[in-house]
Amino acid sequence: MAHAPAADQRFILDHIVDFAGLAGTDRFRDATPDVTAAILTEAARLCDEVVAPVNRDGDLHPARLENGVLRSSPGFDRAYRGIAEGGWVGVSAAVEYGGMGLPHTLATCVNEMLAGACLSLQLKPLLSQGQIEALEHHASDDLKALYLPKLISGEWSGTMNLTEPQAGSDVGALRCRAEPDGDGTYRVTGQKIFITWGDSDLVPNVCHLVLARLPDAAPGTKGISLFLVPKFLPDEGGNPGVANSLRVVSLEHKLGIHGSPTCVMEFQGAKGWLVDAPGKGMAAMFTMMNNARLGVGMQGVGVAEAALQKAVAFAAERVQGKTPDGSPGIIGHADVRRMLAEARAEVFSARVIGLACARAIDMATATGDGDCRARAALLTPIAKAYGTDIGIRVADLGVQVHGGMGFIEETGAAQYLRDARITAIYEGTNGIQAMDLVGRKLADGGEAALRLIAEIESDAAEARAHLPDLAGEVWQSAENLREATEALLAMDLNDRFAGAVPYLHGFALVLGGHAHLRAALADAARLPLARVMIRRLLPGHAPLLAVAREGASGLYDVGPELLGA
Amino acid sequence: MAHAPAADQRFILDHIVDFAGLAGTDRFRDATPDVTAAILTEAARLCDEVVAPVNRDGDLHPARLENGVLRSSPGFDRAYRGIAEGGWVGVSAAVEYGGMGLPHTLATCVNEMLAGACLSLQLKPLLSQGQIEALEHHASDDLKALYLPKLISGEWSGTMNLTEPQAGSDVGALRCRAEPDGDGTYRVTGQKIFITWGDSDLVPNVCHLVLARLPDAAPGTKGISLFLVPKFLPDEGGNPGVANSLRVVSLEHKLGIHGSPTCVMEFQGAKGWLVDAPGKGMAAMFTMMNNARLGVGMQGVGVAEAALQKAVAFAAERVQGKTPDGSPGIIGHADVRRMLAEARAEVFSARVIGLACARAIDMATATGDGDCRARAALLTPIAKAYGTDIGIRVADLGVQVHGGMGFIEETGAAQYLRDARITAIYEGTNGIQAMDLVGRKLADGGEAALRLIAEIESDAAEARAHLPDLAGEVWQSAENLREATEALLAMDLNDRFAGAVPYLHGFALVLGGHAHLRAALADAARLPLARVMIRRLLPGHAPLLAVAREGASGLYDVGPELLGA
Repeated sequence: MAHAPAADQRFILDHIVDFAGLAGTDRFRDATPDVTAAILTEAARLCDEVVAPVNRDGDLHPARLENGVLRSSPGFDRAYRGIAEGGWVGVSAAVEYGGMGLPHTLATCVNEMLAGACLSLQLKPLLSQGQIEALEHHASDDLKALYLPKLISGEWSGTMNLTEPQAGSDVGALRCRAEPDGDGTYRVTGQKIFITWGDSDLVPNVCHLVLARLPDAAPGTKGISLFLVPKFLPDEGGNPGVANSLRVVSLEHKLGIHGSPTCVMEFQGAKGWLVDAPGKGMAAMFTMMNNARLGVGMQGVGVAEAALQKAVAFAAERVQGKTPDGSPGIIGHADVRRMLAEARAEVFSARVIGLACARAIDMATATGDGDCRARAALLTPIAKAYGTDIGIRVADLGVQVHGGMGFIEETGAAQYLRDARITAIYEGTNGIQAMDLVGRKLADGGEAALRLIAEIESDAAEARAHLPDLAGEVWQSAENLREATEALLAMDLNDRFAGAVPYLHGFALVLGGHAHLRAALADAARLPLARVMIRRLLPGHAPLLAVAREGASGLYDVGPELLGA
Repeated sequence: MAHAPAADQRFILDHIVDFAGLAGTDRFRDATPDVTAAILTEAARLCDEVVAPVNRDGDLHPARLENGVLRSSPGFDRAYRGIAEGGWVGVSAAVEYGGMGLPHTLATCVNEMLAGACLSLQLKPLLSQGQIEALEHHASDDLKALYLPKLISGEWSGTMNLTEPQAGSDVGALRCRAEPDGDGTYRVTGQKIFITWGDSDLVPNVCHLVLARLPDAAPGTKGISLFLVPKFLPDEGGNPGVANSLRVVSLEHKLGIHGSPTCVMEFQGAKGWLVDAPGKGMAAMFTMMNNARLGVGMQGVGVAEAALQKAVAFAAERVQGKTPDGSPGIIGHADVRRMLAEARAEVFSARVIGLACARAIDMATATGDGDCRARAALLTPIAKAYGTDIGIRVADLGVQVHGGMGFIEETGAAQYLRDARITAIYEGTNGIQAMDLVGRKLADGGEAALRLIAEIESDAAEARAHLPDLAGEVWQSAENLREATEALLAMDLNDRFAGAVPYLHGFALVLGGHAHLRAALADAARLPLARVMIRRLLPGHAPLLAVAREGASGLYDVGPELLGA
């Protein structure tokens, strides 16, 4: 049985991302070592004992719609109550409304564990957290007072309604509309698709954040406003009252995350409340989306962890032929060991990147420092895309390690692969993340990126005294990244876009090499894993960064005919 | 709707793998340009019109067991009859028994097309072909006369029974036993798992080739013999008579290829006939397995082709935002174009490797030349592992290009990914293939590998006059491969095994670069695709080959604790 990776997270907080510095700020002074330990230990226990056991049931018995009523997978009710009652929805939410007020870094640790335990169920509190954050920053005090306590306690849950059939990556193409009702509320009308947990029988009310256009709104993203549209209109006591004019039209039949209902929603003049000013919908949504992107990156890490643990356990037990090191199991075969060691190295890298991003978000919150904000913004697309790439890759490797058994659904290895696959798509595809990285996130003239690279070079230079070979390779990779970054800055945007994905992946490898170097310096027992990362995986950065500098023209020469259209 | 890649195959036969040289041999003199064109055209028509239309039904309505009777997916009956009646099971089978006697290269083209049309159904004739080949080489004349015509016509079908629960990659651990019955036949007893198309309602008889041990047989692979065990014992007229003592115990519930029944088989003293001499079972099975490995590699290529065509079609239609080149569809976005162009380049590379392998098999058959035999043996694991890796990677990319729709099963993109996933596992996992490459296939002191590398260097040197940049990069990559090969030859076996997978992948990239260089020389219109392969993908060979030289020791330093066990 899998165990939540609290110990590895703790090591990273203590030795790699300077959590102590964060806990030293006034804003996060409650995040003492004792509190941190308690949070990680208790969340891990919940995940191992309550949440993970329902993961397979969610896959086998998908959420379904019975006469318009949503029925969750068996066991999800109890597991969700465990999450809500433990206060895990509101780890980083405002104390004023019932949250724990702890750093987002700790919420990120908890979210990773929950995702590894049951991705389908974890999506529900993750979306509530996004909504909580959007309301904290953008809603009126009345809306906050009414909704935040219910969302933070997990009594109600939240959704995000962006996508429409013609508006996926291009959110600006959405057509859903909202008309003022004369009493300060609005009537929201339109269809939304891919709405995760768009309905739920685990809670008495579901609160939808819906992007829509007011009459005469500007075209594109500037004309988009955000509305809070509850399933049931709260009565005077704040309890679910009259049903709102909205419904789940249907559920999607998906490759994975069967336990998470993906809804087609129809809003038929549903009553809604404007959040923030008219036309500010995208800005508000981005508040929610940035943290959601990190959250999705950590979903990848969580699933990778679970899949890897399963593969390691199988490889230790499965006997096939004699092994060179005398292990009874196939874990002793060099190629199996290679797969597992490389996967373990990359899971660690991705976890560090995610937690470094979370820590930067928290430091920006605590200090208002612009550099921290820029660091968080820079790391977000990397954490999302690399974390989810690793999630899929390690889950895929888990299938491979299981051999023929990996293809049999009862084994459970394939579920991780099917579940993880969506994470590279939702919350902005990984291609969109990469374009964000080379576009918006380099729009500061590369300042944030080059500052991070300089830090890596400085760390690596210092480490030369202790680990000369590994430090030298990390230093050189950072230098290559600096050169590639400068080359990209000199290119026009579409040429950058052509190399965005390899650039992001190369960037992540350099960050991973740096993370492992620091880990090995902090704990010599981690040196073998650092060697795997730096000597076996990090070298892949060179061709990736070289390709990133190729520009777009060669690609457009490959026309539809050559593509086989 | 997908179209079978007959034109691309034809280009490769005409310009890359010297099919004309093969058709110039006495053995294959019937493979004239007209015959070749007719074979490719007719097979493509069958695939597009008859076979591809049942692919989705196979996924939605898996084969099932009703009171012990197997029921195939809807539509498979008609599609299978199309394959059998067209003679497509026996393209390369002996004319004497009803086959077309054409090169295996053409059978390989047909098999790729069938796999792209419907992988689940294509497995059935593919396994019959393996059995036909094993019987042609190893069976008595009586067995040949009785079984080959029925198998070649597709009237009956064949299976391979190797795996047992404790004997997967380690075939030598199998326990199934066979006892002489006194009349020259044997009684076969034991359980076999993962038996593809272990039963079928599409044919009146199913012929099992079963690996088992005779009494007092040596342990390990030397004590294994091969038996032909039909579902129904042929009567005096050669028609299915009395039922044999065997049954399908259950069908597996799998990630993909739902239309292909994967059976647990039980042999309860079933009557069988010895094929070849006692203890020669593995040798006979390898006859079958080598070609099956190439066949599986081409399954990967076929699925990749189908998935890529679907992705290109979607990307041409799907509108999301303005594109830099003015295309209405997302195909105009640089990152989407990158994904599609890289996929197209790798599909071509994998197809060339597979057809070069098939051509070497044929040349060895036609001439008995040892070098050709060694070339075929060398290319087989590369064709299998790279072809199937590409199958999975391109199917995965197909999902990604579809965005959210890719995760919805109705779209069909996810089916390609689920179906392709098994190809990296069965017929020897890709790890086993890589170990075969660096082990057995370098056991000639690297002669076959170094000869191939020298040919690439020579071709590249010649191409310098026409395409200096690309030719230079291909030459250098071949030189790097030569050095890595020599380094591996100096290492002990387990150190080689540790780098086997990256070595194989690096080798494949060099072969792919070479293939595209030749393609661009033959047809300047292919130059843009050659640039994508050589400038964007080929550079990945360098770190792969560097890692291949790392040896095993660093991996074994990563012990179970660091792996998270």
